[in-house]
Amino acid sequence: MEKIDDHKYCFGVDIGGTTVKLGMFDALGDVLSKWEIKTRTENNGANIISDVCDSIKKKMGEKNIDPKDVMGVGVGAPGPVRKDGTIFGAVNLGWGVINMKKEFESLLNMPVVAGNDANVAALGEMWKGGGKGYDNLILVTLGTGVGGGIIIDEKILTGAKGAGGEIGHIHINDEESEACGCGNKGCLEQYASATGIARLARKRLEASDKDSILRGKEINAKTVFDAVKAGDPLAMEVAEEFGNYLGKGIAAISCVTNPDVVVIGGGVSKAGSVIIDYIKKYYVKYAFHASVETEFALATLDNDAGIFGAAKMALDNYYEKKESE
Amino acid sequence: MEKIDDHKYCFGVDIGGTTVKLGMFDALGDVLSKWEIKTRTENNGANIISDVCDSIKKKMGEKNIDPKDVMGVGVGAPGPVRKDGTIFGAVNLGWGVINMKKEFESLLNMPVVAGNDANVAALGEMWKGGGKGYDNLILVTLGTGVGGGIIIDEKILTGAKGAGGEIGHIHINDEESEACGCGNKGCLEQYASATGIARLARKRLEASDKDSILRGKEINAKTVFDAVKAGDPLAMEVAEEFGNYLGKGIAAISCVTNPDVVVIGGGVSKAGSVIIDYIKKYYVKYAFHASVETEFALATLDNDAGIFGAAKMALDNYYEKKESE
Repeated sequence: MEKIDDHKYCFGVDIGGTTVKLGMFDALGDVLSKWEIKTRTENNGANIISDVCDSIKKKMGEKNIDPKDVMGVGVGAPGPVRKDGTIFGAVNLGWGVINMKKEFESLLNMPVVAGNDANVAALGEMWKGGGKGYDNLILVTLGTGVGGGIIIDEKILTGAKGAGGEIGHIHINDEESEACGCGNKGCLEQYASATGIARLARKRLEASDKDSILRGKEINAKTVFDAVKAGDPLAMEVAEEFGNYLGKGIAAISCVTNPDVVVIGGGVSKAGSVIIDYIKKYYVKYAFHASVETEFALATLDNDAGIFGAAKMALDNYYEKKESE
Repeated sequence: MEKIDDHKYCFGVDIGGTTVKLGMFDALGDVLSKWEIKTRTENNGANIISDVCDSIKKKMGEKNIDPKDVMGVGVGAPGPVRKDGTIFGAVNLGWGVINMKKEFESLLNMPVVAGNDANVAALGEMWKGGGKGYDNLILVTLGTGVGGGIIIDEKILTGAKGAGGEIGHIHINDEESEACGCGNKGCLEQYASATGIARLARKRLEASDKDSILRGKEINAKTVFDAVKAGDPLAMEVAEEFGNYLGKGIAAISCVTNPDVVVIGGGVSKAGSVIIDYIKKYYVKYAFHASVETEFALATLDNDAGIFGAAKMALDNYYEKKESE
């Protein structure tokens, strides 16, 4: 990765359920252009890949880029993606099993690398975001669900079936009576996602008559953490519970991977450093001593983490091939 | 890894607290010679490295091996070992912080790679043992403690500080009142190690008057699982508890790494497939659907896993260097 090919370009693509984000980068990873197209999920998402390829070709035309100067294209998509580029279904796109790499390559005639969107975002945060400067990272994405990506020695941990980093479904509570979306009971996602935080708050509001500024308000992760910042005791109890479950979960992941840094992203992380305070308080309680001093940081790339990580995959693939030639 | 250099050799070394195991291998990984020397832990283990180097040189003399035909030496040791070969203390050897790679290389004049013994054993089981044929593996070693090693894409997951795979200290039980050796409460090791199994059995024997063939006997992992095989109801309750904790722990690790196979090794695994039956029963309960069909296997290399894994490290290092030349 020492040599940089100047005057060369790569593309990063992040396919989501409503929009596809695209980025054109130079060989150093600077964004030269960033745009979006609609994700056409009709007909089982049959048009998505050709739409993306058309959009890349159009951009190359506009910018007068010769195909031989494109180092490659990286693509992230919402489903388990194996090393060979096969995605094993993507419900949000209407896809079944597709070899993304092959389909993109046949339309683009350029080298393509594919990965799971959360894993690709983790690579982006390592490269240019909250985990910059580190080789071993855990990205925890607190959104509607809890997603994640694990980076080991600067590479995505893909897993045997492309399901590495599915940390939202670590079993964390034996006492849970409600089922998670996955069918199990007591998954991390049930307590640490935006939905999970709102659920914890609603339960506490119902279980007591305690005064709270949350009463009568819309309950979501934002209103809960706003109330925490305002010093609301009930909201602070919810934050402790959230921190306990998530700190315990991250401590377990750290026993497995011994990371340099844990990066917290997703909508919930918009609450800022207060999130990390509550997580770290419990992380240090449960962590093995070798990992107890692991850094914590907030994600910084927001919705662009995916295109950055995808571009990084394309660059790594280019330089690896070049080295082995 | 496709090309094999014939008429070349490598050495695998596994440094333990009482003996050092050594193996001489050909380039295909067949053992040509296997022997042991005493681990001299006196004077903070100052003689261990030179003893090992002398022993390797002596073997080369006996077998008439030219140093230029040695592809390298791999070494496993009981402590956290970073990528650069630095071990951060090994209590059982009397060592503080030492760069093993450098010290071995200065005495041997050959390429040396070093790793944590449990991680190196995992690589051995992947290469020639219970995980043969798979690229992504979790080794769970049930001995006095619970150790482990994670293999991702045929490589050891080392971790930022060499503490990858420290799975014995995943927090698994909120209700525990006794402390683990590490200082925390509720670590996997407290229930799934040989010591942990005996503890669970003693607790159940004390808590009830239930008839059991274990009463009056020496309680250890072997007698407990012998009683399980004889159909002893109390011993079977202990095995269920063991399976519940360990199955839950392995399910958490699988969420992180999505392995092809989980290999169970260490003294406790001598009880045989009954161990796997109890673990799998609970694993499938807690596992995320993407990992629920993960294979389980018993380790097969026994105390030789370390020298096999160490030899594999030496070979991988040799071919990687050759490729990048």
